[in-house]
Order: sequence, then structure tokens, then C-alpha cells
Amino acid sequence: MLFKNITILNENLDVQESMCVGISDDRICHIGNSIPKEDYGEVYDGKGRLLMSGFFNSHAHTPMTLMRGYGENMALQDWLNKRIFPFEAHLTGDDVYYATLLGIAESLRFGIVSTTDMYYLCDRMAEAFLESGAKANISRGIACFTDDDLKALPAYKESKELYEQYNESGGGRLKIDMSLHAEYTSTPKITAQLAEFTKKLGAQMHVHVSETKEEHEGCKVRHQGKTPVKYLSDLGLLDSKTTAAHCVYIEGEDFHILKEKGVTVASNPISNLKLASGVCNVPELYKEGIQVAIGTDSVASNNSLNFIEEMKFFGLVHKEKFRDPRLTTPKQTLYAATRAGALGQGRADTGTVKMGCKADLIALDISGPNMYPVHDLLNNLVYSASGSDVVLTMVDGKVLYRAGDFPTIDMEKVRYETERSIKRIIGALK
Amino acid sequence: MLFKNITILNENLDVQESMCVGISDDRICHIGNSIPKEDYGEVYDGKGRLLMSGFFNSHAHTPMTLMRGYGENMALQDWLNKRIFPFEAHLTGDDVYYATLLGIAESLRFGIVSTTDMYYLCDRMAEAFLESGAKANISRGIACFTDDDLKALPAYKESKELYEQYNESGGGRLKIDMSLHAEYTSTPKITAQLAEFTKKLGAQMHVHVSETKEEHEGCKVRHQGKTPVKYLSDLGLLDSKTTAAHCVYIEGEDFHILKEKGVTVASNPISNLKLASGVCNVPELYKEGIQVAIGTDSVASNNSLNFIEEMKFFGLVHKEKFRDPRLTTPKQTLYAATRAGALGQGRADTGTVKMGCKADLIALDISGPNMYPVHDLLNNLVYSASGSDVVLTMVDGKVLYRAGDFPTIDMEKVRYETERSIKRIIGALK
Repeated sequence: MLFKNITILNENLDVQESMCVGISDDRICHIGNSIPKEDYGEVYDGKGRLLMSGFFNSHAHTPMTLMRGYGENMALQDWLNKRIFPFEAHLTGDDVYYATLLGIAESLRFGIVSTTDMYYLCDRMAEAFLESGAKANISRGIACFTDDDLKALPAYKESKELYEQYNESGGGRLKIDMSLHAEYTSTPKITAQLAEFTKKLGAQMHVHVSETKEEHEGCKVRHQGKTPVKYLSDLGLLDSKTTAAHCVYIEGEDFHILKEKGVTVASNPISNLKLASGVCNVPELYKEGIQVAIGTDSVASNNSLNFIEEMKFFGLVHKEKFRDPRLTTPKQTLYAATRAGALGQGRADTGTVKMGCKADLIALDISGPNMYPVHDLLNNLVYSASGSDVVLTMVDGKVLYRAGDFPTIDMEKVRYETERSIKRIIGALK
Repeated sequence: MLFKNITILNENLDVQESMCVGISDDRICHIGNSIPKEDYGEVYDGKGRLLMSGFFNSHAHTPMTLMRGYGENMALQDWLNKRIFPFEAHLTGDDVYYATLLGIAESLRFGIVSTTDMYYLCDRMAEAFLESGAKANISRGIACFTDDDLKALPAYKESKELYEQYNESGGGRLKIDMSLHAEYTSTPKITAQLAEFTKKLGAQMHVHVSETKEEHEGCKVRHQGKTPVKYLSDLGLLDSKTTAAHCVYIEGEDFHILKEKGVTVASNPISNLKLASGVCNVPELYKEGIQVAIGTDSVASNNSLNFIEEMKFFGLVHKEKFRDPRLTTPKQTLYAATRAGALGQGRADTGTVKMGCKADLIALDISGPNMYPVHDLLNNLVYSASGSDVVLTMVDGKVLYRAGDFPTIDMEKVRYETERSIKRIIGALK
């Protein structure tokens, strides 16, 4: 495909107008002012459109689309114990497969090209991602409250098999990460064993860290005053390339450890507001030079995968929380939503509009009444754009979403099957 | 028009499926399960659609669309003194007219049917609203730092003439309110005189109240320890039906006064985050039984008029700020966005889907992948919908927006003229 006469956000996140971008196979092979001689197939007229990197969702639990809007305005423990956990107890592989497809469709509609995704029944998630053409870093969240060895856990077996079968499958679209669910849901023994196993495997780590005050303070009580970051670091978990989700309550030395270990923090501003958890101190993370990416968390606590909306929340919550309207610039937000997310997933070849990089791109309609005048397009992208201004989403050079259509996903089947899942599960819970 | 086979949010904000709603002239004349015998003209197939009240934007400065994204990430005083005020000094009537049309188009796209709007050069705003078919409560914000009498002020003359010429024009679509810009921008004499004048006129009042900590605390220093609410109340300003915008720092007795005076509080969650002002204590307002509506403030501090997004912010910020995920239910949010806003504007005949009410309605596409499954549609509307899920906006029974088209607004002309305004003003500022 050749995008012609289109505005782009280039690799420095600078705006360039009237550009031509040529895609060959899965790569960006031409960026310039003039139409190249090579035949790139379809010519896409970029008038009133912006071409930029797609979004990298750095923390999600995609199959939880089935629980969208299920149990709202409840205290956290009530929500988990009365709604989420009982519902999840009924999930089958088929439920997870179709729920993942639904989440992928929503992701593509809102410009997400790749998702760091922790859940279970992950082989069915892998299947859905492979078929859809989207990218994902999938991990089976491990939790163990008993004195077992790691190798005795079914979740360990699932993780290992998943890694062997799917890591780097789909031409590298799928990566399999290891995952400790969180400090408070496993023993130190399991944590240390998983850290060791992950290092040996050369895999990445995905873990929840300091999401709530209770978790953060509870950890100190449980582990000789250590914060979750310190505790996990001491057990070797952060020695592998790690995505730490939330980090709302990190403090003091935590910042230095995250920086030293090269951890990517996935901030989930909407979910953290919705569950009344708090606001991640992203400005302080930036001061320390820590890589910050953006996640949606699950739609059960969001309740959408509208990444432009997530960017707006990310761009605004720090201003109020830390009382400075200068905090978190649109450029920082756009970088967090794209390149930082790609790097956090171990995908150095994407997340940017650059020659030779993977064509994981989106086209936005920037001609709507919400998008002009343009004093600075970056400001408009973060603060003024609407999720559905995304009109095309491309992964590895293939169009996966375009103006309402999902060429790789049978949406009628997905709707039918997810509604059937809901009916069965809600019926069983009554 | 007859909407058939459509899901509706009825006057109790309950969901009813497979309904028929008939519009005759400017009113809702049929609500039922079956197709009426009367001929309502065009039949609108409501499959996959929701019909509900349009949104009432309870605090805005519409012509500031011209300053969208102009001067971002600056401290408040820098932003005002280096960007907003110098820019505004160059505005002409034509600038205001086209900027208002642009704002109206964006409003309609996002389902806003009526706007409580404070600015200046208001005759040109009135012209734009009348032509577009949208509704508005327009007011000329009065500010006076000198010892003048109210009647000596050009802004008073403008307010009075505006009221005489436009109040209840367009078949009641336009209302002209009086407006004190704020406590800190006028003398007690002007405030008292305006209060008296407004009462005599029988008009409504629109005023900024306790938006920032500086304003709130400064008022106490200036006026014998009185908060803005107490100060304005003592001068009689709240004796007229009043919309008080922001109310972020109100405290103690303020709540009782607002309740007693029947004031509508217009909360502007996005603008309050963006300018690092704070979060309005809406849960406490609800406890006192005070009417709460939602505003966008200007796009210069938002930077859009995406009301579904504004609802999500409104629905989420209180949970985190006041540490309780149960705060502000979707039903409260939807009521604030519709009926409470209409009542705050003095429009008892709208803001709800009810027989005999004005047909100020929107149709939403609820078939997208972000809108199902449906455990509770109200949750999905507030937390999962996207601004552009609005596919039709109707005011007084006339379709003013439909699937990208604005039948009453010449969008090409608006774009051309607003860009010309920007070029002239930015040129003059250099």
C-alpha cells in the first residue's frame, strides 16, 4: 500500500505534511515528499488523514471483555469476590477465544496494534491473536499461596508449553512472556523459582506492582519492610526484562531500582481511577529516566479499549494530582502510547514511522470539527481526538481494520458466541 | 420522524427495547411498543441504535474553539497572560460568529443539543446558534475592576440589548442569561447592582465560582472571610436562578447556601484536571441534594466538546479523589448530562424521553465492539461508549447532525473562515 499526500508523525514525533509512505510486505520501505517509482499496490489518498504508529497497549487482560460493565460501583473486594472471581470460575477455552477476538476487534477499532496481555487459558488467546493478525505479548499469570514448587503448578506447565509452542510465532507477532501475577498472590519460593526460570528461558516478565495502597503497605508487613519493588528485585524477578503494571504507590528507593533494572512501567490511568486506586507518579518516573508506557487494564475496570481516550486521561491526571498544568506533555504521552510500549514489549523494530520498521500503523481522520484549528497537531491528537477518528489500522503491513470493517474477524460469529457465553455463565451463577 | 425498533433510555433512565418513538414538529408525540397509525414522515430503523435525550452542556465558552491547543502545558497565569488574553484582544465579531459555528458543529457531532455559554460579542454567537438550529443560554460575562456603576459598562449595555433582542427567540431555543464573570473580577458594587438588575429582569445568572484555590482563598482575604458562595449570596446574586460553574473549593456552609438557593452546579471535570485546578466534590453536592450538571468549559482547556468522554471523566474522577469506587453511578452521570442540565438552563420541557417533551434527542450506535456484551447498558453508555458513537442529533425535532453531515452548517465555509481568523490573529501577535 502507498499512503500519498498524507500528514505523518515521524520518528521524532514531529509533524510532516504532504508525505508519501510506501509499505512493502510487513515493512515501511519509503518515506518521502514524492511518489516513489516502485509499485506498492493500492494507493491510499491521505487527504485529511494522519499516519502514525499504532498504539501499544502495555497492560491488559483481553478476555475480560466478557465482564464489561458487570458489577460496577462496588468496593474492590466485593467486586472481585462477588462478581469477577465467580464469573471467571465458569470460563471455558471457547469463552476465552471469542472474548479475546472481541477484545482484539475493539483494540483494532481504536488503533491498538499490540497488547501485553496477562490471563489464563492462554493457548486460546494465542490462537485468537494469530488468526486476527494482531500482535501480543501473552503471559499466564502465576499465583500460588501454598508451599508447592513452581514445577508442580499447572500454571507453570501452561506457561512453559505456551512459550515452546507460540513464542515468536506468526512471524514474531506473538511473544510469550512469563508472569508473576503479583507479590501478594505468591510465596517468596515461587517468586524466586519463577525469576530463575524466566532468566534461563531468556523470556520477559509481566507483573502487577503496587496497584493499591493495601497491597503496597501489606507487602512491607509481610516482608520485613520491603516494598513490592524491593522484594521482587531481591528475589531476582526484575533481572529479566520486565513490564511492571500500575506502580501507583512506589516510593523512595523503588524509583532507583526500576531505573537500574530497566523496567518499563505500564501506567493504567483509567483503571486506577475507576477502582479508586490512585494516580501513578509518572512525572517522578520521567525525572528518574524510567520508561513509561500506557495500558488499559481489563475492560472490566475501564470499560473500553479506547486508547485515544486513555491517552487523554494519561495526559491530564498528573496535572491535577501533582498540581502543575505543565506536567506530561502531549509528546511524552504520544511516545508512551507508541514507541515506549513497543520497546517495553521487546519490539525494537516498531512503534515508530521509520524506514525499515514494521508497518504497525494507523490512519486518523483529522478533518473533523474536533480537530481544527491546528495550532499544534500533537495537542489536538492527545486532547481533542476521538477514539473513532481512527479509520485504518495496519499490523505488519496488513489492514486489519478499515472504516468499520474487520477483514480477519467474523464479527457476527464473535457477537453470537460471546452472547452465548454470557447467557450460559450468568445462568449458572443464578 | 418515526424511530422504530429502537432501544430507548426512558424518563426514568431505564432501558426499554424495541420501542417506537414518533416526533411531530418539535415534540415527542408517541412512545410505545407498536408502530402508531399516524404518519410521522421518515421512518428511522433503530436496529443497533439507542435513542436518548441529547446532552446539555452546562458551562462553555464556545467561541474559544479558535484557541484549541493554543498554549498548552503552561502555568495558568502564563497561559492566560501570554496566550489567551492577547489572542482574545484581536477577536472580531466575524471571528466569534464562525468560531461559534465550529463549536456548534463539534457539539452536535458529540450529541450536545444545548449549551450554557458565557463570552462576549454575544450577538454574533446568538446569530450562529439561531442559524444552526441548536439551543443555547447565552450570557455576556461582566467584569469590572473600577468604581463604575453597572449602567456605565458597555458589557451591561450588551447584556441588556442581547436580552431584549434574543431572549426566547428561535421558538425558545435561545435564552439570554445575565452573567457575573466571577467574584474576583468585579467590585461588590457591580455585583450587587447586577444581582438587582437580574432579579428585576427575571433572567437567570451564570457565574464562575471557586474554580481555583487561589480564587477561593483570595476571596476570603478580600471579603472579611467570606467564601465566594457566601459573598455572592450576601449580595443577592444567587436569588436569581443560577448556574455556578466549577465549585471545586466550596466548603462548609457553601453547600447549604447552594441548596437553599436552588443553584445548579456545573462541574467541568476535564478542564479542572487540565488546568490543575482540582476535583469538584460532587458526592457531597449529591448528599446535600444539590442539582449537578456537567460542562465542558472552553475547548482551550479541554480540548474538545466530546460529551461522552466528559461523562466518563465525571463518572471516574470522584472515585479516586474521594477514595470510593462506589461514588457517582452511571445513572447519576447520565442524569447530570441530560435532565439536570436542561433544568439548570430553565428548560423543563426537555432533557428526557417523555411524551410531550421537546424532541432534543440523539441516536447512538450501540452495535460496535466497544458496546457489548451488555450486562447493564447504563454502564456501557458512561464507561464504554465513544464520542463518535453518536450518529444522529436532533433539536426541536430537526436533524442537525447525521453520520458526518451537518445540514444547517456550511462546514467548508466555517473551516475556511476559522483558518483565516487564526492566520490573521497569529500574524498580528508575532
